Amino acid sequence: MQNSRLTPQEKNFPRWYQDIVREAGLAEASEVRGCGIVKPYGYKIWELIKSKFSTIIENKGVENVYFPIFIPMSNLESEKEHVEGFSPELAIVTIGGGEKLSENLVVRPTSETGMYKAYSKWIQSYKDLPLKLNQWNNVVRWEKRPRAFLRWSEFLWQEGHTAFATEEDALNEMWEMLDSYEEIYRYMSIPVYKGIKSQKEKFAGAVITSCVEIVTKDGKAIQGATSHHLGQNFSKVFDIKYLGKDGKTHYVYQNSWGFAWRSIAAIVMVHGDNKGLKLPPSVAPYQIVIVPIYKETNKTNVLNYCEKLGSQFTNYRVKFDMRDDLSPGYKFNDWEMKGVPIRLEIGENELKDNTVTIYRRDTNSKEVMKVDELKNSIESIFKNIDSNLYQKACELKDSLVTRISNWDEIKGKKGFFEASWCESIESELTLKEKFKITSRVLVKENINKKSKEKKCFVTGTEAKRDWLFAKSY
Amino acid sequence: MQNSRLTPQEKNFPRWYQDIVREAGLAEASEVRGCGIVKPYGYKIWELIKSKFSTIIENKGVENVYFPIFIPMSNLESEKEHVEGFSPELAIVTIGGGEKLSENLVVRPTSETGMYKAYSKWIQSYKDLPLKLNQWNNVVRWEKRPRAFLRWSEFLWQEGHTAFATEEDALNEMWEMLDSYEEIYRYMSIPVYKGIKSQKEKFAGAVITSCVEIVTKDGKAIQGATSHHLGQNFSKVFDIKYLGKDGKTHYVYQNSWGFAWRSIAAIVMVHGDNKGLKLPPSVAPYQIVIVPIYKETNKTNVLNYCEKLGSQFTNYRVKFDMRDDLSPGYKFNDWEMKGVPIRLEIGENELKDNTVTIYRRDTNSKEVMKVDELKNSIESIFKNIDSNLYQKACELKDSLVTRISNWDEIKGKKGFFEASWCESIESELTLKEKFKITSRVLVKENINKKSKEKKCFVTGTEAKRDWLFAKSY
Repeated sequence: MQNSRLTPQEKNFPRWYQDIVREAGLAEASEVRGCGIVKPYGYKIWELIKSKFSTIIENKGVENVYFPIFIPMSNLESEKEHVEGFSPELAIVTIGGGEKLSENLVVRPTSETGMYKAYSKWIQSYKDLPLKLNQWNNVVRWEKRPRAFLRWSEFLWQEGHTAFATEEDALNEMWEMLDSYEEIYRYMSIPVYKGIKSQKEKFAGAVITSCVEIVTKDGKAIQGATSHHLGQNFSKVFDIKYLGKDGKTHYVYQNSWGFAWRSIAAIVMVHGDNKGLKLPPSVAPYQIVIVPIYKETNKTNVLNYCEKLGSQFTNYRVKFDMRDDLSPGYKFNDWEMKGVPIRLEIGENELKDNTVTIYRRDTNSKEVMKVDELKNSIESIFKNIDSNLYQKACELKDSLVTRISNWDEIKGKKGFFEASWCESIESELTLKEKFKITSRVLVKENINKKSKEKKCFVTGTEAKRDWLFAKSY
Repeated sequence: MQNSRLTPQEKNFPRWYQDIVREAGLAEASEVRGCGIVKPYGYKIWELIKSKFSTIIENKGVENVYFPIFIPMSNLESEKEHVEGFSPELAIVTIGGGEKLSENLVVRPTSETGMYKAYSKWIQSYKDLPLKLNQWNNVVRWEKRPRAFLRWSEFLWQEGHTAFATEEDALNEMWEMLDSYEEIYRYMSIPVYKGIKSQKEKFAGAVITSCVEIVTKDGKAIQGATSHHLGQNFSKVFDIKYLGKDGKTHYVYQNSWGFAWRSIAAIVMVHGDNKGLKLPPSVAPYQIVIVPIYKETNKTNVLNYCEKLGSQFTNYRVKFDMRDDLSPGYKFNDWEMKGVPIRLEIGENELKDNTVTIYRRDTNSKEVMKVDELKNSIESIFKNIDSNLYQKACELKDSLVTRISNWDEIKGKKGFFEASWCESIESELTLKEKFKITSRVLVKENINKKSKEKKCFVTGTEAKRDWLFAKSY
């Protein structure tokens, strides 16, 4: 079944995505080029994701703070690789309070250089470590080719900035945070690849960038989150030192890790179908929608029955679709488009038999149940929806990887490619030029493994390890 | 008892405020002039306030959205009074993605002109009304004389933007929102004056600005929140029309209402004393702090007892102060500075008698209690702390108002002044010049009442109504 308001996925997946964003009421373009307006339905999904991730990091002892949106240009320039990476993407304030500023201010693209002068004040002794702070904020990175949620010039995210006494502590935390990102995606019923980035793809200023990568239904990659080990690159620039138990001063080791509302795009592109969104119950603004089906003669009875039914599910996010001028069929399509996990249809039959007709969006299937039965099984139904969505996404992910030995095998194929690689920046540039493909991730398990094949799939020279490659959003 | 890290309130109240912000670890200045860094303890207070107010507005059917931080300059210029009001305070982006922009972008000082073009698309029929949207975001208003939380160039707030079919509906909602602001301040144990602003003090572009005003311990005013009735000023500019049931098109009536983290300054300035902050339990990052008092010989026993005690209050935000290198006395001062409502002191005596020594920050008094007794009464103790703080704040508020007939009576007095006023802009300007005093609010009950006296306290001409005047932060 196809909703006519959507371009079919198989015809043009990126357009299907655009259509969904519009038709499900998630977001729309604004009059400011490259920036979007996130509408209530889309924003609520973000709030639910954010709330869960807040709990995850709070349990790790991370505390929230707020730093200014502006960063003096000279701060940004103090880490060479960092400023080179971000320069092309900056929005710059040159006028403030009616006057030309003596020093231009950058609208933060990320806050390393905005926060670390304060860190150098706050951190004096080993007792001040580890320092684990996080911000939920907006950042700006000028986009030449904007795409809803994935590439807007302004986006909402969290950025964690941590400091440790030892390299080992920092590296451990980098991986721990990556596990937390895996956890938040699992919450959205999405499996990930977990590992590290190539030299070309790593964060400007990092020693190691680790990441989670997501496979979309059209076989492309979404970078789901990154956790960077910054080593002492920034602590040496910003003079962040502590007095150790050994009585000597040392530079701290730092990480930063971030995760944005592009996760909403991942939900759409991993679970959605030609009828619209499919939302996991965990992040669905409405987990249950109740649609009454009535004529004038039984309207009051049906509505009363619906209300009584709704009152039995107060622990859930329930929408009661009371719109009087729309047909049940229209409403069905509408809520399928919006991906509500469970729809309850209530008409004369249900009234007579004390039942409900339950429609599951994950399977697009209907079933009639006694009200008590539904009440007792609702929690397990939601669990089942989640595990079903996750299972399907895992199968999708696995089905979209091809092992290749030579880059000629990429031609005409979509999806992820696993290959033994020499890891040179030149070969990655060549690959990108020829196939628009980049290295996505060296999965954690393969970091200390030699490549399966001796020769690099691009250059034919000696291969190092087995990496995953794909086109990315 | 005076904490030596604080300037005494009676000596220099504004400096005492600065000292508290620093010593309680709420915030500090950043390297970007006029912008602050909000530290974990301060930010947590804001999160608790925000969480409560989110629930209040969600229950009113308000939905959250996100609009871009940038507003095209031409949008801002389209409402004449609005742009005149905000022009001197703007931060302006002139460079984006490495290029000079063809149209400058304003960093939002408030979002009326950023949101209402979308409203004109979204609102077509009376069925689309009322529209009630809100944003939690950051805004920038360049400040010449910054002050922590009260006047920073960037601040966090919420801005609600609502549209209605009729003027009556809009006016009702303006007052309803003012009640909601009264409610959120009551949550912080703070009483307010509720009413409307003078022509001079109203929001640039509004028909009516209603507000809640708070009385600080030094007798100044903090504008706690504002709820504006915009009439059709913006709907006519942005062409926001709906097709009515009458088959005709009408411009909508609009309100906007906002509330910022300056509420944290109100908490400090209403409740604090010379020992530090006093936090109402509702917004205290830690509601209970447990301080162990031990020697090497009984350390394990005391700590175990503390832990067992803490585990009985899992419904509360409890801090267990385990710092080994600090004396109990130092810790007492520290938590008093931070305003934790209840401190539990546990030493040898408490261990022996199965008791706790409970210190209440609101009254600065100690009491010994059986553990079970504390457990049973904790909820009522918190309620009592709240009502005690609120009661004290009400008495303060009342004690700081003086009824005057002539402006000469202002000389040498501090606090609020109630006076019959002619309501002319000229008289307000004169008043401000002579005494640095402005009209704060015409309280709701006085809007339809004639003034008590015939003559204006400033000009001696005919008085209209009785207003409140004060210096403000």
